[in-house]
Amino acid sequence: MNRPIRQRIAALRSWMKAQGIEAFIVPTNDPHNSEYVAPHWQCRSWLTGFDGSAGTAVITLRKAALWTDSRYFLQAAEQLEGTGIELQRLAQPGTPTIGQWLAKQLKGNQRRVAIDGWLDNGSWSDDLQQHLGIELEYSDDPFHTIWEQRPPLPQDPVTIHSLSFAGESCPDKLKRIRQVIAQHRASGILLSALDEIAWSLNLRGNDVHCVPVFVSYLLVKPQSATLYIDRQKLTPETTEQLAQCGVSIRPYTAIATDAQRLKGKILTDAHLNGQLRSCLKESLTLSPTPVSLMKSVKNEVEQEGFRRAMLRDGVALVKWLRWLKPAVEAGGETEMSIDRHLTALRAEQEHFRDISFDTIAGYGPHAAIVHYEATPESDAALEPHGLLLVDSGAQYSDGTTDVTRTIALGPLTPDERRDYTLVLKGFLHLQQAVFPEGTFGTQLDALAHQFIWQYGQNYMHGTGHGVGSYLSVHEGPHQIRSNYMPALLQAGMTVTDEPGLYQAGRHGIRIENTLLIVPAMTTEYGRFLRFEPLTLCPIDTTPIDFSLLTPEEAGWLNDYHRLVRERLSPLLDEEEKAWLAEATREISC
Amino acid sequence: MNRPIRQRIAALRSWMKAQGIEAFIVPTNDPHNSEYVAPHWQCRSWLTGFDGSAGTAVITLRKAALWTDSRYFLQAAEQLEGTGIELQRLAQPGTPTIGQWLAKQLKGNQRRVAIDGWLDNGSWSDDLQQHLGIELEYSDDPFHTIWEQRPPLPQDPVTIHSLSFAGESCPDKLKRIRQVIAQHRASGILLSALDEIAWSLNLRGNDVHCVPVFVSYLLVKPQSATLYIDRQKLTPETTEQLAQCGVSIRPYTAIATDAQRLKGKILTDAHLNGQLRSCLKESLTLSPTPVSLMKSVKNEVEQEGFRRAMLRDGVALVKWLRWLKPAVEAGGETEMSIDRHLTALRAEQEHFRDISFDTIAGYGPHAAIVHYEATPESDAALEPHGLLLVDSGAQYSDGTTDVTRTIALGPLTPDERRDYTLVLKGFLHLQQAVFPEGTFGTQLDALAHQFIWQYGQNYMHGTGHGVGSYLSVHEGPHQIRSNYMPALLQAGMTVTDEPGLYQAGRHGIRIENTLLIVPAMTTEYGRFLRFEPLTLCPIDTTPIDFSLLTPEEAGWLNDYHRLVRERLSPLLDEEEKAWLAEATREISC
Repeated sequence: MNRPIRQRIAALRSWMKAQGIEAFIVPTNDPHNSEYVAPHWQCRSWLTGFDGSAGTAVITLRKAALWTDSRYFLQAAEQLEGTGIELQRLAQPGTPTIGQWLAKQLKGNQRRVAIDGWLDNGSWSDDLQQHLGIELEYSDDPFHTIWEQRPPLPQDPVTIHSLSFAGESCPDKLKRIRQVIAQHRASGILLSALDEIAWSLNLRGNDVHCVPVFVSYLLVKPQSATLYIDRQKLTPETTEQLAQCGVSIRPYTAIATDAQRLKGKILTDAHLNGQLRSCLKESLTLSPTPVSLMKSVKNEVEQEGFRRAMLRDGVALVKWLRWLKPAVEAGGETEMSIDRHLTALRAEQEHFRDISFDTIAGYGPHAAIVHYEATPESDAALEPHGLLLVDSGAQYSDGTTDVTRTIALGPLTPDERRDYTLVLKGFLHLQQAVFPEGTFGTQLDALAHQFIWQYGQNYMHGTGHGVGSYLSVHEGPHQIRSNYMPALLQAGMTVTDEPGLYQAGRHGIRIENTLLIVPAMTTEYGRFLRFEPLTLCPIDTTPIDFSLLTPEEAGWLNDYHRLVRERLSPLLDEEEKAWLAEATREISC
Repeated sequence: MNRPIRQRIAALRSWMKAQGIEAFIVPTNDPHNSEYVAPHWQCRSWLTGFDGSAGTAVITLRKAALWTDSRYFLQAAEQLEGTGIELQRLAQPGTPTIGQWLAKQLKGNQRRVAIDGWLDNGSWSDDLQQHLGIELEYSDDPFHTIWEQRPPLPQDPVTIHSLSFAGESCPDKLKRIRQVIAQHRASGILLSALDEIAWSLNLRGNDVHCVPVFVSYLLVKPQSATLYIDRQKLTPETTEQLAQCGVSIRPYTAIATDAQRLKGKILTDAHLNGQLRSCLKESLTLSPTPVSLMKSVKNEVEQEGFRRAMLRDGVALVKWLRWLKPAVEAGGETEMSIDRHLTALRAEQEHFRDISFDTIAGYGPHAAIVHYEATPESDAALEPHGLLLVDSGAQYSDGTTDVTRTIALGPLTPDERRDYTLVLKGFLHLQQAVFPEGTFGTQLDALAHQFIWQYGQNYMHGTGHGVGSYLSVHEGPHQIRSNYMPALLQAGMTVTDEPGLYQAGRHGIRIENTLLIVPAMTTEYGRFLRFEPLTLCPIDTTPIDFSLLTPEEAGWLNDYHRLVRERLSPLLDEEEKAWLAEATREISC
């Protein structure tokens, strides 16, 4: 019996009855379809008591259920105990979709299913149409009234992202955006993705965990631009910069009424929330969105910023790696403690702002859980054997980092060595690829997968994603993955290279660099592209099974290690330099 | 001054004037969108005098032009001389599209552009819409009246494709087709692709060059099936088989009126000609077509047939390869003469029916012309140096073959060796691939391209296509190529592996095997697939630059050669066996 949760659900049901709604969907989302959700919009967590990062609650007048994925099965089962909320385990045999489940619950003629339209990203309508034959209705936000101590909208100040980091002025960016409006003979473009707004205006915020964005909408028209934002978030400097760029300010909530008054065709992206989309008289959805494409191609200043940020990140990583094994051997270190030390070392670096995502530090079997995040309950003590996987990154003013290393803490099993080497081979073959302009990521994915496929193994996550320039660590529109992603790989784009292999209950391996796409050569067949490794961090060579590595692959790893050594050594003290020389020593086979 | 062609164009213009048509498009096509066109439909060739396999003529009341691609620029220029027909070179700078060209020619208000609707495959309407703002009109076939000695519709008999080759009875195939009709709640399916009809009915014909199909339409309904065909093409045996399968016969031309009377939703494919599509009241286009998908997955009997046909094809190829070099050294051999000898050796084999496409035998610079076909004028004498590319195949009753080998006739340049080795590496890496179920061909294409990309080289054709079972040598819906092709690779499908490299004016290289997709293993990640090489023919090892080959790649080639030797040797005489042993001798590096 969990009284507070039962009371909250009862309050929601009272509201539902008053509205004549039979079922209400509470997703994990904000009006901007953000990857991370600010506390103000963590309604699902407040309502159900389950505070994992992903899950959808559905409340009917009699029943309640919550859908979440495998990484949260244990946590959700514990947190939902006594609440009366059924746990629905996604992607498990027999688990119904929300539509299938509701079809059993709602027997009457009136089958009204609603959602706060500002949180609808279009994920549910097909399922409801198929299994209930109904349209999803939009309601007001019930948590305005039933959530008494609801956190306010984020109030953090918006700051200027200096031109010396951005490399292109806000007026120039707005000019490019207006060219797209003209191309489509549209009357404006409505941006709702927070990183697209921050990029367009050369501003940064602090409203979303790990992502320096601010809650707002941006409407750009041929002759004007309007930022919808709470005015108290703007400093005098940002207010002045916006004025200089011809951007006027309107209250955040005014977008609803203003959108209804818009005339002509408005360009939008597929992520625009359903409520706002329904306000527009005429809209054209562009996919990929023009701003995501502009943002994905880094200019020279951003590229140089990335290179500088990676130098500092590399110094922190070398200091941390040098410390790690002796510290583990000395005893007392855990998944969480080594992460704290890594963040502390990064925080010493110039321009450090934050981590770029919650570190995944998984030891032994924990590393086989793809999105593992250590908690005080799970936090494993590290011992001098087996593999430790650490996927981490930082936000610096001049660049965002994302790097994964898997480290042998001591003796390994033959299986660990084999799997490590297969992942390394795929990682190296993708990093070394040369490919013609006009190639999309799906074409290159097999280069990373080919060796583990030979062993009947696979990893079920993408091989690569774009990385923002002091923005979201995951950005599109391009990706490297098995599913078809039509966005072409272009010079100036960042992309990660992160194959992995996960043996449930035993070990997990992932090796990841952030890469920059650069010109390789121009021939009679046109321009060819290649990858420049941005990440500067040694790759552990002790787990390699040399019988599986070719001389060519060893040469590629040696080339990368020479680059790491040459770039980082001038920034290290003598002992660190000696450690790095040893860690990047030439291998042969 | 070419009087006959000018007279033919004048006759067409008289007909156009009578119809009030200002421009008329004469494509290279038949009503079935076939790859090869029967003489009856070679109207463009008759009208213009240009007899290459590809080209589109456009005739206005004052001007005439013909669009063709680079392989025919020389031939078309010669054949069009004195006809008054402008040659438009496709994919060259400054060449207008048909719509752009017509926009300049047709100045008046009345801009009526027509085509025989039975030959419209939808290629032109967007271009005309964009540049002239008009719809393409459908006319009757003017060549009925103006082409006096027009060849009749193909009259060749239709024969039974025995169940011992087909492996699945016609009633069973119709049952599967009817399940698709039921799934889509349709009232029938209209097949117009000739290979789909031949497959469905277990019948073969002789109406199209190199492809054993017969001109017809097939309408399948839940309770009936109708074959639209000239009855005199049917032998007593085929008539009886059709009756037993519940297939009734209607005249070929009756489809036009019958289609107009069809009730309910009719399933079609994207290749259905425009005229027939316009007859249907309600249609649903399926892509890929269900029959192409069924046909692409070979049953056990077809797979065994392929293996037997490849044994016989391999014997012919070994006899030919053994003969080739001494013959070239003796002198007097040409691209055409060695092709005649190869066809003669194939024709000695059991179940040989025809070649499966016009052989591409290119020596030296000729091999750099991707679709080169030797003519008496171009036919090059072979000398004991340089590379000879031969792409050929045969139709056997139990399987269709398609194989390319590039052969060193003597000393080679370092560039020839390097290019040969890069192509061979790509060929081997694709042939050895293991991949999970659910993979499509676009994902695997880079395995074949990766090495030539490293050198800034490329080939602009697909890497692989399906191969019919005594049907078209090119079949879909799956392909391995850079462009996205969503059809998944499935166990039982045939597919070619044919990377190449073409250095204009110097040399051309392509290595091709036909492969069968087979299960590799089943693990916790599901079913994995691999390729079984069907083609049994030694790959020339003398051009290899061993500094570019890895021991693993050498091992793969040795494994393939061991397979070729073990399968073919029992079918060879002692001298051939000794030659094959030498040709497939182990290499090491």
